[in-house]
Amino acid sequence: MSENNQQILLVQRPQGMPTEADFKWEDIPVPQPADGEVLIKTLYLSVDPYMRGRMSDRKSYVPPYELNQPITGGVVGEVIESKATGLSQGDIVVGMLDWKKFQTASAKQVKKIDPTVAPMTTALGILGMTGLTAYFGLLDIGQPKAGETVVISGAAGAVGMVVGQIAKIKGCRVVGIAGSEKKNEYLINQLGFDAAINYKTTPNLVKALKETCPNGVDVYFDNVGGEISDAVLSLLNPFARIPICGQISLYNLENANVGPRIQPLLLVNKALMKGFIVSDYAERFGEGYRQLAEWLQAGKLQYEENIVDGFENTIQAFLGLFTGENLGKQLVKVAEPSMR
Amino acid sequence: MSENNQQILLVQRPQGMPTEADFKWEDIPVPQPADGEVLIKTLYLSVDPYMRGRMSDRKSYVPPYELNQPITGGVVGEVIESKATGLSQGDIVVGMLDWKKFQTASAKQVKKIDPTVAPMTTALGILGMTGLTAYFGLLDIGQPKAGETVVISGAAGAVGMVVGQIAKIKGCRVVGIAGSEKKNEYLINQLGFDAAINYKTTPNLVKALKETCPNGVDVYFDNVGGEISDAVLSLLNPFARIPICGQISLYNLENANVGPRIQPLLLVNKALMKGFIVSDYAERFGEGYRQLAEWLQAGKLQYEENIVDGFENTIQAFLGLFTGENLGKQLVKVAEPSMR
Repeated sequence: MSENNQQILLVQRPQGMPTEADFKWEDIPVPQPADGEVLIKTLYLSVDPYMRGRMSDRKSYVPPYELNQPITGGVVGEVIESKATGLSQGDIVVGMLDWKKFQTASAKQVKKIDPTVAPMTTALGILGMTGLTAYFGLLDIGQPKAGETVVISGAAGAVGMVVGQIAKIKGCRVVGIAGSEKKNEYLINQLGFDAAINYKTTPNLVKALKETCPNGVDVYFDNVGGEISDAVLSLLNPFARIPICGQISLYNLENANVGPRIQPLLLVNKALMKGFIVSDYAERFGEGYRQLAEWLQAGKLQYEENIVDGFENTIQAFLGLFTGENLGKQLVKVAEPSMR
Repeated sequence: MSENNQQILLVQRPQGMPTEADFKWEDIPVPQPADGEVLIKTLYLSVDPYMRGRMSDRKSYVPPYELNQPITGGVVGEVIESKATGLSQGDIVVGMLDWKKFQTASAKQVKKIDPTVAPMTTALGILGMTGLTAYFGLLDIGQPKAGETVVISGAAGAVGMVVGQIAKIKGCRVVGIAGSEKKNEYLINQLGFDAAINYKTTPNLVKALKETCPNGVDVYFDNVGGEISDAVLSLLNPFARIPICGQISLYNLENANVGPRIQPLLLVNKALMKGFIVSDYAERFGEGYRQLAEWLQAGKLQYEENIVDGFENTIQAFLGLFTGENLGKQLVKVAEPSMR
């Protein structure tokens, strides 16, 4: 291999919003695969809000990233060399891998993608972790029924826009909360949401929710937390369900955020709230993938990707998640496929 | 009927802690049962924390009490005269009835008690709403497994002490939080709790919980809310379950209480929190009653009653719920059975 290799290390734990100084790009050799391994060239990598939690040294659903070690996350790559049965040079694979341009992995660490179903990038989005997160969080915890009202915070994010489309498939009224007119127009005109609220410009979020949810809120799919959630929770219907998928408004706060206590609202509404992470449903990924792929191929699901070009722009792409500007799944393109 | 009759009306909505001035005792005639009705003499009535919510004009799980109307709640009474098939003079019945010394009710409004199973007062406690609340909240929402740790706030209250005993039957480590040494000694020595914490005297509740819950908290049965819950929630294990049964620490606050946001803790622990009221399980009351009665008759469940004598002391008995002094089920004895 004559190509240069590089990895991105976490070198200090961010205080508040991360900066590039918290990371280091390091040149490293291209490794050799051992028996049972493949050499993978990274084509796309996924940046996701949950990664912010792993950058801190506090309890989260997955262990913190270690200092001076590479960041890991969802990666789509191409098999450059295979010493593993079942994987061949040129195969496109997806897995939880390091932020490296080239790396070795065992065959068990990756899954081969069938690029005839959908473009390979969907393996990091609608047919990957974000799609499955939406699918299981909404259907298993949210349990939407036809005619009910589903409210989604972070509605124009990679997970939120899948949640809304599945809720429409299930016959619900769907109201999204997002941070720009452009996003809200997309949610209504492209994805068929019944209404969308711009939390940045709405003078009174509770009033806007009352107008758009005349029958109250049966399911609140929460990606955001904070004051947006305070507003939605004030409109819960009896037996409401609240999947807690993310709390992106709080991830960069150094101290625990304070707000009105919610237990009384859960009590009087006999409501259910549950935190989850997609890996809780690992045994059912096959089911979720098949259903999402079927809807996608039938034209019932649309997706949006925001692709930043270049490994060197990875952290900028990651930070974009927190400024509320991106629509849909945020990806970084690291390289072109070489072996086609 | 030559006896005098009396009822207790709500005449103004309490601000903060209720006072006797919010209620009025009124003399009324003893009514005549119509066809299909019985005349009931109240023997015992139940005072319960949830009633505080109904005294306010705000949303709760049941509609607010109406002003200048009698308070309603759990009542055990004796059939004085029957014009209903299936009920005879001398029968002991339980139902959601008015705070009146005498009243008529349809046969459907009451359930006949079998006094050979347990004393009639248990129909308002361990074999009634409080026992069923503990049974369904713990088993259906809490889903305790042998070896897990169950923490209960309001542990020496009517519901809490049943929750703890059922959790012990299920093989759990059980830690109660209550407000006096006397209560905690009772929980440990009489009911077999593994540990009990006096929240009024413990200098550091989190530390005390860490010591008594070395393996973390799998189920938190919450009757109390507020800062006690903040402490317990900091020690949740992954996939913890939190039945929200009551929030007694907040019921007399006029404004919404503020505290650390809990959604991030539910998220990182993939925890489930659910509010409930016992009537959610009405279809399964038979199952719950049979199991509780079996455990009671087998000596596996104990109960404690705190009986205040006299209809005129009803409000004092009710207020005692909020001062943290009572152990077990709080009842008011209104009259002796007359027809034995």
